[in-house]
Amino acid sequence: MITHTKLIQSRKIKLFNKIILFFIVINAIIVGLDTYPLFSQKMGHYFSLINNFCLIIFSLEIIVKIYYLRRKFFKNCWNIFDFGIIFISIIAEFGPLSVFRIIRTIRILRFLSVIPKMRIITQVLFKSLHSMQGVAILLLIVLYIYAVLTTHLYSDIYPEYFGSLTESFYTLFQIMTFDGWSSGIVRPILKIDPFAWIIFISFLLIASYIVLNIAIGIIVDCITEIKEYELHLKIQAKEDKLLEKMGNLENQIRELKDIIEKKHH
Amino acid sequence: MITHTKLIQSRKIKLFNKIILFFIVINAIIVGLDTYPLFSQKMGHYFSLINNFCLIIFSLEIIVKIYYLRRKFFKNCWNIFDFGIIFISIIAEFGPLSVFRIIRTIRILRFLSVIPKMRIITQVLFKSLHSMQGVAILLLIVLYIYAVLTTHLYSDIYPEYFGSLTESFYTLFQIMTFDGWSSGIVRPILKIDPFAWIIFISFLLIASYIVLNIAIGIIVDCITEIKEYELHLKIQAKEDKLLEKMGNLENQIRELKDIIEKKHH
Amino acid sequence: MITHTKLIQSRKIKLFNKIILFFIVINAIIVGLDTYPLFSQKMGHYFSLINNFCLIIFSLEIIVKIYYLRRKFFKNCWNIFDFGIIFISIIAEFGPLSVFRIIRTIRILRFLSVIPKMRIITQVLFKSLHSMQGVAILLLIVLYIYAVLTTHLYSDIYPEYFGSLTESFYTLFQIMTFDGWSSGIVRPILKIDPFAWIIFISFLLIASYIVLNIAIGIIVDCITEIKEYELHLKIQAKEDKLLEKMGNLENQIRELKDIIEKKHH
Amino acid sequence: MITHTKLIQSRKIKLFNKIILFFIVINAIIVGLDTYPLFSQKMGHYFSLINNFCLIIFSLEIIVKIYYLRRKFFKNCWNIFDFGIIFISIIAEFGPLSVFRIIRTIRILRFLSVIPKMRIITQVLFKSLHSMQGVAILLLIVLYIYAVLTTHLYSDIYPEYFGSLTESFYTLFQIMTFDGWSSGIVRPILKIDPFAWIIFISFLLIASYIVLNIAIGIIVDCITEIKEYELHLKIQAKEDKLLEKMGNLENQIRELKDIIEKKHH
Repeated sequence: MITHTKLIQSRKIKLFNKIILFFIVINAIIVGLDTYPLFSQKMGHYFSLINNFCLIIFSLEIIVKIYYLRRKFFKNCWNIFDFGIIFISIIAEFGPLSVFRIIRTIRILRFLSVIPKMRIITQVLFKSLHSMQGVAILLLIVLYIYAVLTTHLYSDIYPEYFGSLTESFYTLFQIMTFDGWSSGIVRPILKIDPFAWIIFISFLLIASYIVLNIAIGIIVDCITEIKEYELHLKIQAKEDKLLEKMGNLENQIRELKDIIEKKHH
Repeated sequence: MITHTKLIQSRKIKLFNKIILFFIVINAIIVGLDTYPLFSQKMGHYFSLINNFCLIIFSLEIIVKIYYLRRKFFKNCWNIFDFGIIFISIIAEFGPLSVFRIIRTIRILRFLSVIPKMRIITQVLFKSLHSMQGVAILLLIVLYIYAVLTTHLYSDIYPEYFGSLTESFYTLFQIMTFDGWSSGIVRPILKIDPFAWIIFISFLLIASYIVLNIAIGIIVDCITEIKEYELHLKIQAKEDKLLEKMGNLENQIRELKDIIEKKHH
Repeated sequence: MITHTKLIQSRKIKLFNKIILFFIVINAIIVGLDTYPLFSQKMGHYFSLINNFCLIIFSLEIIVKIYYLRRKFFKNCWNIFDFGIIFISIIAEFGPLSVFRIIRTIRILRFLSVIPKMRIITQVLFKSLHSMQGVAILLLIVLYIYAVLTTHLYSDIYPEYFGSLTESFYTLFQIMTFDGWSSGIVRPILKIDPFAWIIFISFLLIASYIVLNIAIGIIVDCITEIKEYELHLKIQAKEDKLLEKMGNLENQIRELKDIIEKKHH
Repeated sequence: MITHTKLIQSRKIKLFNKIILFFIVINAIIVGLDTYPLFSQKMGHYFSLINNFCLIIFSLEIIVKIYYLRRKFFKNCWNIFDFGIIFISIIAEFGPLSVFRIIRTIRILRFLSVIPKMRIITQVLFKSLHSMQGVAILLLIVLYIYAVLTTHLYSDIYPEYFGSLTESFYTLFQIMTFDGWSSGIVRPILKIDPFAWIIFISFLLIASYIVLNIAIGIIVDCITEIKEYELHLKIQAKEDKLLEKMGNLENQIRELKDIIEKKHH
């Protein structure tokens, strides 16, 4: 009887999720259409209505969840994530239109929490982030050193790119992505300081090498994790057979012992 | 007798495939030469003739295949692929020259279905696509959110790049490929909105991280698949030896038991 | 008693490291603020004071370490690294302000030696460098050949990019990073020498292939190293169980032998 | 006695290689210095002398090798490689100065054949090429289809980039490297044909995906090859122990049998 109730409950939860997903899709479409001035002007009123309706639905969802799960609600990261999004959305409703329109887009992120597969992918991506932490700090240290260096050296020559520490930071990030690093940035500097290539090529080599190692770190992590688990299962299955055979052998020897002992008494 | 007939048949199929491959090559060369106005004007008539002849050959090939395989024909993806290409080609013949010339090029794709190695590679590439599905959807969600955001924020400042949702989508895709993202797009915006870098650098980091994970997903998939199979073979071979030895042990103990029991009766 | 003293010592060392880390942070902040002319002019005097104070602290740290470790001090790479940085810093103090300001930034590198995690990461990165050595030399040979070639061929046509061997080297490095390789460099050359694409595309393909192999080399190295160690542990644990069971079997058989032999005497 | 002679021979070969390496270095330096007009004009005569001397040395090396190895000489790829380089060099000597200067640079490639480590690396790189063959052909087919398509569609709009099939090929290669693909090529086309993005983004996605799979193919190949060998060794060592223990068990049981049988007779 209980399992039957549970089955109905799990079905209800699935239906519940599907309804929420439906409203997330509606909300996402409205948010998209709202960017076209033509639609926005003509149908802006309806958009606001649908948008508010979606927000009410999402708020009700959270209230229902809090009511049922109580304290457990805030133990799940995804619930906090949902709560945060809706909380910010409600506050933004009382703000000016321009802010409110932008904040509304973050509700699209609810796709991540409502589709189970997206939840898993997001969690995996966040977990991988952890493994690149150390190398990322190293990259920041390198960036900081080169930002200070280039600001001292080129703030007068090239104020647009290296005018201040933050501008140098941004420019070095751009160089790191190879976007016009030579054609736009280094070649003009080379005309004034012919040794500037030492600084920029050394930076490029070090930064690329660190970025490469971030990527490698994630690859290695993923491979070791997955392979480990699979190998574990495989080796275990094979060795279980061996251990079973061993057990049989032991039993046979024990029987043998019993036979010999009995016969001699 | 039957195997002999089969051998001849398989030889016939190979010859058949080689003839088809020959016409695909001819077709591909004609399609290439046709792009040169000089050739196209002088020899356009011959090109059309050869082209139509190739199309007839390919049509015959499919008719023969359907005749022999009957219903089985449409169970193979590659047959449907071939059928689709020829079907579209025939329809295009009745269209205007400009469309027909462009449609003709897709017949080059028949290289993929006629060379066995190309078939395997294409299948592997399609299979890998499957494993990146989830992360690709995540990327689309992120792109959509940023497209809405940037359209709201920069459609007035920079209508060329962020004028509408579709234009923002295209521009964000361009930014994702690092092509002139800073020199062409972000730097001009920074002059008006000095905090624009927050949006674009956050987008770049998130998008690159997701793209990186798509690549890693495929790498990990390939490695686990291949390695698993090979390890399986290796461990099995080794443990078969062990299990055999075990069996020998058991037999010997059983014999021992028999000896003891016999002697004591 | 001795362990107690050791415990206090290790606590002292930890406290000592935290104090040093604190001064490295202070030093890094000062170095950053110093790049803003506003701060630099107003607070330049205080900056110099703090900076000198940091330098004295770091010097004292090294003197204390040398006093305690004596000859062992120079056997650790990180100690030599610290010594080098402080040594250069002290010398730069007597140089002109502009040089001294730049040299001061290298003290930020002390983050790498004082945080244990950063030490490990830096060591791993250096170790990986070793595995790419051979392919890097190959890349240099290829670069050199193409630099000589392009200087001979295009020094007259395009002196800005291929004027001398060093300029060609720099330009080829830029091409290797794909920054404006076609739009900025090869297309203008193509107008004069329509076969220039043979040289540049061959260079791009060879160079990218070598760079790809550098990356792959590091990936493969990392994976084999880590996996090896983990597999080692796993297989060992499993086989230890098997070996134990085997031992039990042997003991039982030995007992059996003893029983039989005793009974028959 | 024979081993002693062999030892001397192997020492002689090593010395011989070092002398050749020395002349390759000299030759490479001369070739580099020759690109500077200043050196070239002043010391051109000496350069020619040294260059010719090097060429004579390399020719002698090959003659000596052919004399000693006879038919075996042409069975080694590296010998053919060396022979080819010197053969072309000698022929180029009789050509005009400009050609001869360029051909001279290929002698730097002899670094690859004379340093054993470089030989191995080059062989590994060539072997990896083999594994990417299939996917590379797929890429060529895709490139060819898009080249025909874009030539038909944009040869009138944008003759500079898509004027002929070969120009389209080059432009598509440029697009594949992401160099100004949007800012320089696609955006101008979009103004005339607003649906051009379908062709170029589909091309970019397909081409990048294939290039990614080329890289992955090499990674997977390398990992499986190396790992396989290492796992093989590891598992074997462990299982040898197990098999040894098994043998002990068997022996003991055999002894047991003998004891029982003896006692009962």
